[in-house]
Amino acid sequence: MSASFIPKSVSALSAAAIAGLRAALPPDRIYFEAADCLPYAYDNSRRVSLPQAVAFPMDENEVVALVRACRQFRIALTPRGRGTNTTGATVPVEGGVVVSMERMNRILSLSPGDRLIECEAGCTNSDVQRAAAAHGLFWAPDPTSADFASVGGNIACGAGGPRAVKYGTARENVLGLNAVLGTGELIRSGCHTTKGVVGYDLTRLLVGSEGTLGLITRATLKLLPRPAGLRTLRVAYRDVSSAIQAVTRIMGQPAAPCALEFFDTDAVALAQAWRDCGIPADTGALLLIDVDGDGAGLEADTIAISNAARGDGLVELRSAASRAESEDLWAARKALSPSLRKLAPRKINEDVAVPITRLPELVSGLGALSREHGLRIVSFGHAGNGNLHVNILADPSDPAQAGAIEACLHAMFRLVLSLDGTLSGEHGVGIDKRDFVAWEVAAPALAVMRQIKRVFDPEGILNPGKTLPDAAE
Amino acid sequence: MSASFIPKSVSALSAAAIAGLRAALPPDRIYFEAADCLPYAYDNSRRVSLPQAVAFPMDENEVVALVRACRQFRIALTPRGRGTNTTGATVPVEGGVVVSMERMNRILSLSPGDRLIECEAGCTNSDVQRAAAAHGLFWAPDPTSADFASVGGNIACGAGGPRAVKYGTARENVLGLNAVLGTGELIRSGCHTTKGVVGYDLTRLLVGSEGTLGLITRATLKLLPRPAGLRTLRVAYRDVSSAIQAVTRIMGQPAAPCALEFFDTDAVALAQAWRDCGIPADTGALLLIDVDGDGAGLEADTIAISNAARGDGLVELRSAASRAESEDLWAARKALSPSLRKLAPRKINEDVAVPITRLPELVSGLGALSREHGLRIVSFGHAGNGNLHVNILADPSDPAQAGAIEACLHAMFRLVLSLDGTLSGEHGVGIDKRDFVAWEVAAPALAVMRQIKRVFDPEGILNPGKTLPDAAE
Repeated sequence: MSASFIPKSVSALSAAAIAGLRAALPPDRIYFEAADCLPYAYDNSRRVSLPQAVAFPMDENEVVALVRACRQFRIALTPRGRGTNTTGATVPVEGGVVVSMERMNRILSLSPGDRLIECEAGCTNSDVQRAAAAHGLFWAPDPTSADFASVGGNIACGAGGPRAVKYGTARENVLGLNAVLGTGELIRSGCHTTKGVVGYDLTRLLVGSEGTLGLITRATLKLLPRPAGLRTLRVAYRDVSSAIQAVTRIMGQPAAPCALEFFDTDAVALAQAWRDCGIPADTGALLLIDVDGDGAGLEADTIAISNAARGDGLVELRSAASRAESEDLWAARKALSPSLRKLAPRKINEDVAVPITRLPELVSGLGALSREHGLRIVSFGHAGNGNLHVNILADPSDPAQAGAIEACLHAMFRLVLSLDGTLSGEHGVGIDKRDFVAWEVAAPALAVMRQIKRVFDPEGILNPGKTLPDAAE
Repeated sequence: MSASFIPKSVSALSAAAIAGLRAALPPDRIYFEAADCLPYAYDNSRRVSLPQAVAFPMDENEVVALVRACRQFRIALTPRGRGTNTTGATVPVEGGVVVSMERMNRILSLSPGDRLIECEAGCTNSDVQRAAAAHGLFWAPDPTSADFASVGGNIACGAGGPRAVKYGTARENVLGLNAVLGTGELIRSGCHTTKGVVGYDLTRLLVGSEGTLGLITRATLKLLPRPAGLRTLRVAYRDVSSAIQAVTRIMGQPAAPCALEFFDTDAVALAQAWRDCGIPADTGALLLIDVDGDGAGLEADTIAISNAARGDGLVELRSAASRAESEDLWAARKALSPSLRKLAPRKINEDVAVPITRLPELVSGLGALSREHGLRIVSFGHAGNGNLHVNILADPSDPAQAGAIEACLHAMFRLVLSLDGTLSGEHGVGIDKRDFVAWEVAAPALAVMRQIKRVFDPEGILNPGKTLPDAAE
């Protein structure tokens, strides 16, 4: 959309650089052919930029050797889990080497009594969930992409998901990390305990840094006991304001839902159009609520949350009695993202967050922006965190719509910031939101972030063109 | 104990420096007389080092002016909340100016619907708890010193407390911070939402940095709904191992206790000696458990946790039916720290943490160290986090005991690290553990921490002599 979204010139690797890379890794760990590189040229942002090489390290020593070679020859390195991110964070805009972590996918240790798992960064989220589930445990982050997304990618992006409202995001559920910095140094941060205050918190600094500070190689994850029971409530309200009032009541009492998802009026219509879900006709907004727990505790929490959900503007409260019925209620939510693509060829999917009491202003403001710019906007998502997936829909072949997208997006970001919100609750910055970071983060903090970047990556070889905006010329 | 524990030469301020400081603050905000400075020369570590001045800024602008003056004249600044820390973190070992935040004690905003409070750093923990309680909310950190300790100090030390086992420490309960860096720049980090991934996580970097990276001026805190009900269980076991097995069972099921405190054999005897608490004679270890919740949910959680507490080695499970009875059971726990002082004139109070399953090895290892070094060691504390308060007791007038302290402490730290533990779960490093940081944090990570320190504080004026060890000569 703006100049910095266009990759800088991608120059070919010199013969010396290629020789250096070949010396760093065994031949079956690095490929230079365009045909081999192409699958690593894009991610779920649908941006494309071809790397000159793709590497598949098998262990930390190989990552160190690779980074050292790249440092010596000033080659850009783009770490990549499974490329499920939506912001372009793993697109190699300056070419160089994509470092795919997919072969570093071992579970290194699992201690159920300590609720700890240690794994390599290339494990998928679901690899970890499966290993943990065998001991009645789980890892909190549950992005929609959990079946494919890697743990390293989840951590690098600060991934959340619906469950974050009760159990927190990657930030609150990682205890320690191993990472290779842009200097080629391997560091170990954090500890094996849920409390620890020795030295500065490098773990949280790496969480959400999108591979710009270090290449995460291993993680020690905090696991939680998995409740046996689940209840799903689907609560229909007359309008958005009534639904948000209910969110405030639910979050204001001690029984925490493990998901609290909001659908605006358009999202309700979309879900109902996708398949008749039996949503009452006069529904203007919907909450989809999961409550987890065991036995009598689950019953008590479900009653407490149901009571909090009831109030002015309630149209219907349905409770799913079985897992199958729960999954049925959730199917509409999971179908929303793909359904949107059918409405318009272009979907700009943002994940802004505002304090919960500002959600009505956000949703009404989005309505005003939709009318003003002639673009449909559909919002749904993690209301318990004030974190909405705002989808601006457009047909780029319509010049009026195509021309309106940028202004609408900018106005939406300004609206969010005016409501004390943040531009990204869980997707991160990547390329997409890079030009807007300075709208949220004031110059002194941004200057500190740039200096931290230089500490971790003095040559600027780690994932260039991401996360932080370029310094003003 | 070692050379670095002795303050470097504290030189008097030059006339120009005094003039610079006087120009930065109104006259009733800075004092230079030794009599005025003396109350700010020490903290709960009982170390003493006289500053040349003590400042009482009233707002952020005054903090900025003060830091800029100190930077210009290279004067050390030691930020101070209420001096309740036990590690010497607020003792001005290089003299200079102690910056007492006690006059910056305003609650700036409270939004119950958003579960947010914004306050100045000098508010006490209990100021925040009182304001939050009026809306049925609370802030998770609950150090024993909560009535006096400041929010800024809690954050700077990464404070926890018994409740951390369910609700987390300062790290998980601060959303954003304002801080003045050693450059004199005021930065704002974080956001007003429970999720946010724009830019690097400067908030968590400041949490636990003990005033060495920035002077925290304001905080946005995450509040939680306060459950109305509380049940306390006191569970006696035959021996330490049985008690720790019970901790593992309790932490392995989904109903989370809001406190899970452990007493070793000596701590049990001490509690019983302080006052007859009716602890059965054959008790070798004790758990004190709080469960919070509302109505039927609380009943269900109490049953689940009681069931998990029962098992091999159980001697007695007592349940307090009323708040008064709960407070009675807790009185023994709260009396432990002061009681220890009666046992021996010198008490070295450490707060190491190990993975829960390693607690039996820690406790038996401490027994071996006690015998080997001829020093009594009493341990109790936050077993749900594997975080024990290990108290090495000695009479310094006995040369054998005095001579054994250092070797015993060192051996204890080596034991903790061999068990995958950390040297501090919540007290922090300050002066006391500075020489041991490099035992836990390997050189590459330590080098990064030192470089981060230079980014935030290029002249090294912020709380010198704390947190990070001096670089090797």
